[in-house]
Amino acid sequence: MALSDTRFLTRRRALAAKLAAQRVDVMLVTHLTHVRYLSGFSGSNAALTVYKDLSALIATDGRYTTQIAEEVPDIEAINARACATTLLSKISGPRRVGFEADFVSVSEFKKLEEACGEDVTLVPISGVIEEIRITKDPLERERLRAVAELANSAFWELIDDGLIQAGRTEREIAADLEFKMRIKGAERPSFDTIVASGPNSAKPHHSATDRVIEVGDLVTIDFGAHDRGFNSDTTRTVVVGEASDFVKEIYDIVLRAQLAGCAAAVPGAQLVDVDKACRDVITDAGYGEYFVHSTGHGIGLDVHEAPWAAVTGSGELAENMTLTIEPGIYVPGKGGVRIEDTLLITSGVADNLTRLPKDLLII
Amino acid sequence: MALSDTRFLTRRRALAAKLAAQRVDVMLVTHLTHVRYLSGFSGSNAALTVYKDLSALIATDGRYTTQIAEEVPDIEAINARACATTLLSKISGPRRVGFEADFVSVSEFKKLEEACGEDVTLVPISGVIEEIRITKDPLERERLRAVAELANSAFWELIDDGLIQAGRTEREIAADLEFKMRIKGAERPSFDTIVASGPNSAKPHHSATDRVIEVGDLVTIDFGAHDRGFNSDTTRTVVVGEASDFVKEIYDIVLRAQLAGCAAAVPGAQLVDVDKACRDVITDAGYGEYFVHSTGHGIGLDVHEAPWAAVTGSGELAENMTLTIEPGIYVPGKGGVRIEDTLLITSGVADNLTRLPKDLLII
Repeated sequence: MALSDTRFLTRRRALAAKLAAQRVDVMLVTHLTHVRYLSGFSGSNAALTVYKDLSALIATDGRYTTQIAEEVPDIEAINARACATTLLSKISGPRRVGFEADFVSVSEFKKLEEACGEDVTLVPISGVIEEIRITKDPLERERLRAVAELANSAFWELIDDGLIQAGRTEREIAADLEFKMRIKGAERPSFDTIVASGPNSAKPHHSATDRVIEVGDLVTIDFGAHDRGFNSDTTRTVVVGEASDFVKEIYDIVLRAQLAGCAAAVPGAQLVDVDKACRDVITDAGYGEYFVHSTGHGIGLDVHEAPWAAVTGSGELAENMTLTIEPGIYVPGKGGVRIEDTLLITSGVADNLTRLPKDLLII
Repeated sequence: MALSDTRFLTRRRALAAKLAAQRVDVMLVTHLTHVRYLSGFSGSNAALTVYKDLSALIATDGRYTTQIAEEVPDIEAINARACATTLLSKISGPRRVGFEADFVSVSEFKKLEEACGEDVTLVPISGVIEEIRITKDPLERERLRAVAELANSAFWELIDDGLIQAGRTEREIAADLEFKMRIKGAERPSFDTIVASGPNSAKPHHSATDRVIEVGDLVTIDFGAHDRGFNSDTTRTVVVGEASDFVKEIYDIVLRAQLAGCAAAVPGAQLVDVDKACRDVITDAGYGEYFVHSTGHGIGLDVHEAPWAAVTGSGELAENMTLTIEPGIYVPGKGGVRIEDTLLITSGVADNLTRLPKDLLII
């Protein structure tokens, strides 16, 4: 059996162990990210059943016949358009079948109910696969490191090539960065690249427009690459030409907040405390009302996933979780700064996957 | 009131008219595509309530305070993280509140139920907004035409610049095409660009790998651009250097099938008949088993949306619907061809938004 097969089997074994605790005989996996996590299949239509004895079935349609044979050599594949109901109809009762309550719509649930055989009971399951995914196994860590390296080296080339400069548009800069990530191996950006310049930098979720960069502008670039299922997420803010006192002031505050957040992100730390460590620096400096979002999130197969470092919430960090630390100050009409790294939590100081400098860069 | 506001109000009016028929007092819209369609808001966290008297409320979180004021000047905006339950909690009974059963998960539905006030009844609604969206209004038609033009001119530049050639990789070609679309105004590709060369062309949903193009290869490029909510979708297959008899044979069959599909796509045509017109050409030529997917789909705010031209299904075409016509032949180990245009259905022959030649191009 190939190395890859063992890996997916290990994940399915972890799932099967959790199912026993929920008194579930079979788990019907329909969320495509989870189908991929547990089987390796990356197509756009699929479902998977994992039985408590670790046997499994996967379904996809005719478009993916060749692909599923390559990607999933170790699970019997069924050709079906309606994947979930087809797999469900193959289960004979009495059986308790778990379904993904966070991802199955009310309409789909009705169809599942109709496809159930006699004595088959549907059991809503939430967060069980996420609990497994929240700590990254060695291959996931390697992939996350690689995709972060890819994206960040593309950003550094963008700086090196002098592509951020007055006279160019936000769109051109985004296109250049995305092209560099693509050529280096990204399948796509992991989210719409943000290039927010001048007054646009005060909008945390601006995208990239035809606005022309001017001397004195803050330029916030929030970008990531997606490769083989995994994502990266980084933000840097640079200044073009010259930095005003306002720019220097808020940059310094955000940088100190970001470093405080990174320092607090250790195994055993409460997530609210990580947020607080970061937020307090900004609040103490008098800009608390301008930090309008959370401190950070986990990243892996999803760009945004558990754990969550926010004002409200619960839970603590553990080894091999990921967490972004991304404080920002956004003053409408004046401009904004955000600095974001992605951390891999380790036993000591977190391993920062974002190997890019953070001092104020005037270009 | 600005032109844009009138447009969204017109759409909300169409929704309100349909709600009366379902005996619903308020519609809770949570699917982001539908929030955008009915309000103009393009953020990543939002919900909208439309009352039968046409009053409305919209909710989003603090990240989008500036953006929602710009994009939605005509609806009162509420700052909330849990948008749907916040809006729901503002509805006092007795009221029947419609929710989007196709998009609300079983878990979310439970939260909605808990947020309901006394005498508020949740009513599952399916397909009502889609019924409005299926025929495109003048502004949608203009946007669809513009985004198709953008993507297709990028493809033609790719050909003109000689960027598809032996020695280059699938990935490089995809990166070049995506860069051209981005610079011309696309926010992103509307889906992962497919560049499927040589044996990969036999996989209908191949992506773009590091495979190096060779002389004699078929190269299938399936691509689209996304701009301001709207999408395009086009496929062309070219041959590098020289075309074998096999290539000429299957290209000719697919082209004839595609033209037959286009000719059949007129108002009043049954969608199964459009599929049949296209499919029969391939089946009659002895390649029926190698056409493993449907003939086409509508396109608009979603890349794939109603109507559906497939072997099974129902319904008929009407003016101002869109439909792709995209037959293919995929012979494992030998190669494949797909040709795809996007049509806007008009009273006469459909308006082909894909203004690109379709004869076999040997480059």
